[in-house]
Amino acid sequence: MTELLNNREYKKEQLKNLLKKIHEGEEVNKLKTEFKAVLSSISPLEIPLIEQELVKEGISAKEIAKMCDIHVELFREAVSGTDELEEKDLPEGHPLRTLYEENHEIMKDAEMLNLYASTLVNTKDDLMRKEILGVLEEIVGNLRKVGFTHYNREEMLIFPYIERRGLTAIATVLWMKHDEIRFMIKHLTELLRKREEMPWEEFVTKFKEKANEAAFALTDMVFRENNIFYPTVKALLSEGEWKAIRFQEDEFGYYKVQPKEWNPDVEPLHPWQIDPTLNAEQLLGLPKEVQQALKGQPLEFDKAELKREDDIDLGTGYVNVEELKAIFEALPVDVTFIDKDDRVRFFSPGERIFTRSLSVLGRPVHLCHPPKSVHIVNKILEAFKEGREKESTFWIRMGPKYVYIKYVPLFDDNGEYLGTLEITMDIAPYKKIEGEKRLLDWRN
Amino acid sequence: MTELLNNREYKKEQLKNLLKKIHEGEEVNKLKTEFKAVLSSISPLEIPLIEQELVKEGISAKEIAKMCDIHVELFREAVSGTDELEEKDLPEGHPLRTLYEENHEIMKDAEMLNLYASTLVNTKDDLMRKEILGVLEEIVGNLRKVGFTHYNREEMLIFPYIERRGLTAIATVLWMKHDEIRFMIKHLTELLRKREEMPWEEFVTKFKEKANEAAFALTDMVFRENNIFYPTVKALLSEGEWKAIRFQEDEFGYYKVQPKEWNPDVEPLHPWQIDPTLNAEQLLGLPKEVQQALKGQPLEFDKAELKREDDIDLGTGYVNVEELKAIFEALPVDVTFIDKDDRVRFFSPGERIFTRSLSVLGRPVHLCHPPKSVHIVNKILEAFKEGREKESTFWIRMGPKYVYIKYVPLFDDNGEYLGTLEITMDIAPYKKIEGEKRLLDWRN
Repeated sequence: MTELLNNREYKKEQLKNLLKKIHEGEEVNKLKTEFKAVLSSISPLEIPLIEQELVKEGISAKEIAKMCDIHVELFREAVSGTDELEEKDLPEGHPLRTLYEENHEIMKDAEMLNLYASTLVNTKDDLMRKEILGVLEEIVGNLRKVGFTHYNREEMLIFPYIERRGLTAIATVLWMKHDEIRFMIKHLTELLRKREEMPWEEFVTKFKEKANEAAFALTDMVFRENNIFYPTVKALLSEGEWKAIRFQEDEFGYYKVQPKEWNPDVEPLHPWQIDPTLNAEQLLGLPKEVQQALKGQPLEFDKAELKREDDIDLGTGYVNVEELKAIFEALPVDVTFIDKDDRVRFFSPGERIFTRSLSVLGRPVHLCHPPKSVHIVNKILEAFKEGREKESTFWIRMGPKYVYIKYVPLFDDNGEYLGTLEITMDIAPYKKIEGEKRLLDWRN
Repeated sequence: MTELLNNREYKKEQLKNLLKKIHEGEEVNKLKTEFKAVLSSISPLEIPLIEQELVKEGISAKEIAKMCDIHVELFREAVSGTDELEEKDLPEGHPLRTLYEENHEIMKDAEMLNLYASTLVNTKDDLMRKEILGVLEEIVGNLRKVGFTHYNREEMLIFPYIERRGLTAIATVLWMKHDEIRFMIKHLTELLRKREEMPWEEFVTKFKEKANEAAFALTDMVFRENNIFYPTVKALLSEGEWKAIRFQEDEFGYYKVQPKEWNPDVEPLHPWQIDPTLNAEQLLGLPKEVQQALKGQPLEFDKAELKREDDIDLGTGYVNVEELKAIFEALPVDVTFIDKDDRVRFFSPGERIFTRSLSVLGRPVHLCHPPKSVHIVNKILEAFKEGREKESTFWIRMGPKYVYIKYVPLFDDNGEYLGTLEITMDIAPYKKIEGEKRLLDWRN
């Protein structure tokens, strides 16, 4: 025991010396090799204890954070040496490279979460606790974003390509695990928010346990992705597929990285446009684990055609006229469209708040209004056409209905005025809604 | 003066005798000729006075109402003898015949309004006042419907046909007068509602004045329509046009009449499908007043084509793909459509509550959801396909947004399942809306 303590005392002294150097302004990068030597001799379990002792001796939490960074980086280098190779293969801005880069950040933050949670347990000083809690809040707040950036991009943009090729099981398992992690991090947020509601010891024990679990799950997911999922999609997806993915990534956002433009000279290929059959080369290029899993069960390629003969290409999908009519009828809003020449061109069918009949088609809008209010309709349209107004809203009570009316000018991609849309809806039902009703509450 | 009183006394006695016969159960129709003889000798101004005296002598308001009916009918026969001829020309269910028939009812109710308002002024008995007020409330309540049935059908279904032919002035003048009448009747409703808020004398004087005005305006409109507007449209509109009108009338409803089916063997013609030029026969068939008005000013026929080359016929209008995209983008709701095979087929473009990317197109819906809640999605779709559920709604808080999610199954005209529409919207803004903001409040 004494030996162990002495040993730790020695390591601590070494770390302290290094931290002093940082404190004195020496570049962290230059100290990396030295840190590496010291840290590699310390077990991960010891680190929080040592850090805690350093804190007691007056080293600030911020300086320790810098040490954490180095520690995590070293850890990452040790465990994911192979990924570096994969990553260097890929051009900057390639979606797969971005995913690898994000995984570095996730790994680092998971480790930070672990370290700070453990440090918190051993911190007695109130001010220090507060400081560490602040850092933890920031880390957990960041990690929540992993779910709707990194994981969401995989689930929404990449999974469809492997599902088409019959590898739905991989997608489903990963998504399930993603959701577990999302839930764990959400739970940590709640614990932090409710920390005043329980005794400190109870909170800190629970938090450390849950933080360790979450950090483990995050790290585990990085391994799964880097070693199985990414090599799989690398073997399967063509450049056109990656290009289609790249075009849509920005909508979801990224975890702590900002990928460059990447625009190879190929046609973007959406999931419904690919040939989903696997050739021998692709099969042999798959990670062994995936090859193993595929043995003995025939792959079910999804070859369903998206576009039908009579479909209208709306840019964000293909529907036929029958479906379009049904969609407009099912909308919880009624619309009437007047074209650039101020003539009624279309109204949505079905039961409406304000009755519209076919006779109105082609009618100039200034003839469709009570003469008394026509001048206002004309003024609104003028303001729309001149770009002075972006919308005009009105609301009136009509018996049990609370009718909300919205006028919006429409423009094409070149900014040319296309016409104006009138939208009417009964908002009375929405005013009565309280609380929440979630998908999982559904019963029939 | 004595003579006048004696004369009135005599007429009153005659009326009383007739009313007694009604009271004793004799058929009103049988007494018509006798009533006609008596009533024709009484000036309209005298009638309320006599009626009031009869009330004092114990004749109930209900019996007087029967007399009013006869009186109005006689009055109508006297003033609109020519319309009867017009009306008999037209087959049952023909929209123009319906309009003539409604005008009889409007005439009668306007006269009733007048009579009862005048009677009210002279009534001293509280119970009688209450009874008369009840009758007036009913009459005024009925007359409010003239605006959104009879007038609205003319404005929405018939005006477009004469506008196309360049007779916009007639349409505009009639609509302006319609609105004045709508306002007058609305005002009467308000007066009746607020009658406790002012002294009786003030109320009754005001009400009588306004009721007389409204009754006059209503009757005046009947004359204008019967003598100018209806002969005009009778001369101009073809059978196909009337057929198109007939098909759309039911949506608006009728004033105290229920027209029969009328379905001539011609193609329905909508305003944008007609040849709007007037031929000599049509011109000469117009009422003299209209011919006179048209002299000296060239008719501007509206020959604008509704359907363009690349238009999609949506049944309730013609739009091109560019306009459709812009419409979906401007909607205050986001939609995602999954087809009958449970595959995502379309989502509305633009900024959305739940991000959708092109990769989702063609993806089976059960692969688009977190594995944990997939079973519920499947159950909902099953209930939709089997017709057990008509919709499914959920609501969740998301930061400042209050997200309302609605799933609706879509069916074609034959009841075949087409797919399911997911609609999402932020209802937070609607929950904050209070009061009213009307078109006439608009300022920019």
